[in-house]
Amino acid sequence: MSGPGMIPQQLIEAKRDGLELSSVDLERFLAAYQAEEVAEEQMAAMLMAVYFQSLSRAELTTLTDVMLHSGQRLDFGHLPGPCVDKHSTGGVGDKVSLVLAPVVAELGAFVPMMSGRALGHTGGTLDKLEAMEGFRTRMPLGQFQEVVAKVGCAMIGQTPEIAPLDGRLYALRDVTGTVPSIPLICASIMSKKLAEGLSGLVLDVKVGDGAFLPDQGDARRLAETMVGLGAERGLPVSALLTAMDRPLGVAVGNGLEVREAVECLRGGGPPDLRELTIRLAAEMAEVCGLEADREVSRRRAAEALTSGSAMERFARMVEAQGGPRGLDTGTEPSAAAPVQNEATADRGGVIQQVRPRTLGFGLISLGGGRTRREQSIDPRVGFEVLVRPGEVVERGQPLARVHVASDSDVERARKVVLEAIVIGRSPPDPPSYPLVLDRIGAAAEGQETSSL
Amino acid sequence: MSGPGMIPQQLIEAKRDGLELSSVDLERFLAAYQAEEVAEEQMAAMLMAVYFQSLSRAELTTLTDVMLHSGQRLDFGHLPGPCVDKHSTGGVGDKVSLVLAPVVAELGAFVPMMSGRALGHTGGTLDKLEAMEGFRTRMPLGQFQEVVAKVGCAMIGQTPEIAPLDGRLYALRDVTGTVPSIPLICASIMSKKLAEGLSGLVLDVKVGDGAFLPDQGDARRLAETMVGLGAERGLPVSALLTAMDRPLGVAVGNGLEVREAVECLRGGGPPDLRELTIRLAAEMAEVCGLEADREVSRRRAAEALTSGSAMERFARMVEAQGGPRGLDTGTEPSAAAPVQNEATADRGGVIQQVRPRTLGFGLISLGGGRTRREQSIDPRVGFEVLVRPGEVVERGQPLARVHVASDSDVERARKVVLEAIVIGRSPPDPPSYPLVLDRIGAAAEGQETSSL
Repeated sequence: MSGPGMIPQQLIEAKRDGLELSSVDLERFLAAYQAEEVAEEQMAAMLMAVYFQSLSRAELTTLTDVMLHSGQRLDFGHLPGPCVDKHSTGGVGDKVSLVLAPVVAELGAFVPMMSGRALGHTGGTLDKLEAMEGFRTRMPLGQFQEVVAKVGCAMIGQTPEIAPLDGRLYALRDVTGTVPSIPLICASIMSKKLAEGLSGLVLDVKVGDGAFLPDQGDARRLAETMVGLGAERGLPVSALLTAMDRPLGVAVGNGLEVREAVECLRGGGPPDLRELTIRLAAEMAEVCGLEADREVSRRRAAEALTSGSAMERFARMVEAQGGPRGLDTGTEPSAAAPVQNEATADRGGVIQQVRPRTLGFGLISLGGGRTRREQSIDPRVGFEVLVRPGEVVERGQPLARVHVASDSDVERARKVVLEAIVIGRSPPDPPSYPLVLDRIGAAAEGQETSSL
Repeated sequence: MSGPGMIPQQLIEAKRDGLELSSVDLERFLAAYQAEEVAEEQMAAMLMAVYFQSLSRAELTTLTDVMLHSGQRLDFGHLPGPCVDKHSTGGVGDKVSLVLAPVVAELGAFVPMMSGRALGHTGGTLDKLEAMEGFRTRMPLGQFQEVVAKVGCAMIGQTPEIAPLDGRLYALRDVTGTVPSIPLICASIMSKKLAEGLSGLVLDVKVGDGAFLPDQGDARRLAETMVGLGAERGLPVSALLTAMDRPLGVAVGNGLEVREAVECLRGGGPPDLRELTIRLAAEMAEVCGLEADREVSRRRAAEALTSGSAMERFARMVEAQGGPRGLDTGTEPSAAAPVQNEATADRGGVIQQVRPRTLGFGLISLGGGRTRREQSIDPRVGFEVLVRPGEVVERGQPLARVHVASDSDVERARKVVLEAIVIGRSPPDPPSYPLVLDRIGAAAEGQETSSL
């Protein structure tokens, strides 16, 4: 492809034309980018070419390795248990991480979670955590490792020490329309997760209107690619494809979601949130070698929620990271919005859809999300969705509670609800997805798709 | 697509997904780029998305108009004859412009040529002109217009006053693998040609191994798009698809090509160069309304070459632009290479191919071309190709004369020749292209493809 003097545009052209780049060429291109000899515009063109032409398995492995080795790798080998993490591809109302980390710590694993911010219409765990006053999502890596060791779980954002090349590429993808590329997503996730020093990883791959990759086929390819990439690099990975054709749980909005997570940790909360948490906990226990029998893990996870032990652990984590004290003794984790109101059905019928994408963008329009990285978020605003697809409603019945910053926002919030929640005459067709659509896990020989 | 606050990445995503951008959105995007609010990396991603998804006719028109209006428009309305130009999509050994401009001026039109530099394996008229010592390809626009008025023709490079947005986009495309996009090529050519204030334009669209778009179907699409775009903007355009499966003429290399052009202007030179010049001259006379009967123009063009009148006019142009004096009285236009040698056939047989792309890249490797804009060129080096496809040769017969800077380059130059010139046992199959493959011209109703 290129001689000793690598010519960046020749490699861009080769990728554009669907050719495979040798690992030597791809490494040179990435090294030159890190050395600022390949310009941002050349990398942008390469990323768009990758969007259209994809990456071969070998190219994907090279990209992942170069991103991994651009920074530090954590080592949790001294801890008396396996380390495991969960990554969600992002959705609306997905507050699972907050409940899941302490539950899995209760099962005996350590959970060093590195999370992201809201992106597009989807929420981000970091923004939810910051709805708790004082909670620090940035800390030195040494302190992060201490909290993991002491509490069993901790949650921070991506740090400049971990896969800095991924951080730079991600920022570039964000402004150049090259985020939803399966190989680029896989390399980005996997380089960071490999750097976390894990014994196992579980993916929650969302499917449906509210997901980044709404199509089930794309979600499956993503899951399979990640499982294969993990197997190749010695990290056991399994994936659940889960429903994002409606929001998860009731709450949409950072503060409301933290409150709902705490409800769930107190043994209550919406059934779908509780069930998905338990399913993911059992996957995590299996994938990191803690407990092969998922039924055993399910029972133990349910007990951790019912008994309050997971709540108590979450409270310790929040305290250790500077957040409110006494969450396990009734303290509210986040501030309430000054104005609350209801959006009611303008006709009777059957709920056809509760569109998560519409709610996600609606949240942004009310100040509860952002369109640019530097925008601040009002954590108090959001929606409590009171109906589910398939449910029969009467005219005038509340569809959602809206939580807004001022009276002048009530009408806009109501409009969002009425746009998101579609009422029809007959049961929704096609019906909404089951909570978990499929499981994709590593097997001894490559990978398999197992039935539920 | 976007509200009052245009979000660049949303427009990139729309183009990536194959949607059509409204003219308002596209104009905003381009205006923001000109104001440096859209970053180079965002434009690079947009250009790569355009490479894959193309542009609609409306998008193409918008892009062309915005590039045209980013700079000045010349006005030659005061001249006592029509203004006409020719644009070649670029090939190897294509020195037609140097002969054609004075010939068409002899027919009574004015030819304000704006040319480009060598790009990839293809040569550029500017580099050829600069093989003549002192020749100025940069001058103030006023002075350029004066030479056109006084001599009938002049040749300069793209100036910052004409379609500056095209210049910026072209530089970006050059380093991001987004040059060979039919709509981007069309918009780039047409915006500059519309700015020249022409009455007509003829395209020489090269087809074959040595062309930028080797495929005949692509060449045809390019020609049809340009003819249509011209018709829409009131500029009559016609196109010839011409052979670039072998070099045009004998000489490849800047100085050698200028010498060959001068030979042709003196009434000699290779038959294909002479014939293509005459064909294009007749097209130009027709398209600018000077002479509808192409046979009449052909005869007059041939006379201009045979009589020496075109030579005399070229000599005046070169003098007016600072180049050597006395070209019409025997002065050599450019310096010879210090070392000349022959590359001979290593076997007997029939010439199958004379690959222009191989010769073009070989020329670069010998210092006669460039891979980066800032590299300087040795105008003395090059090849004289002594055989044509279909010709029978004996072992030891000279295939080409190589002109190089030093003895140490002779072997490399010979290798290039032996790689470019393929000898076989039977006549080449498929046979090489006819010199002119097709003509595509504007008609009253849209466009037509007329037979030869």
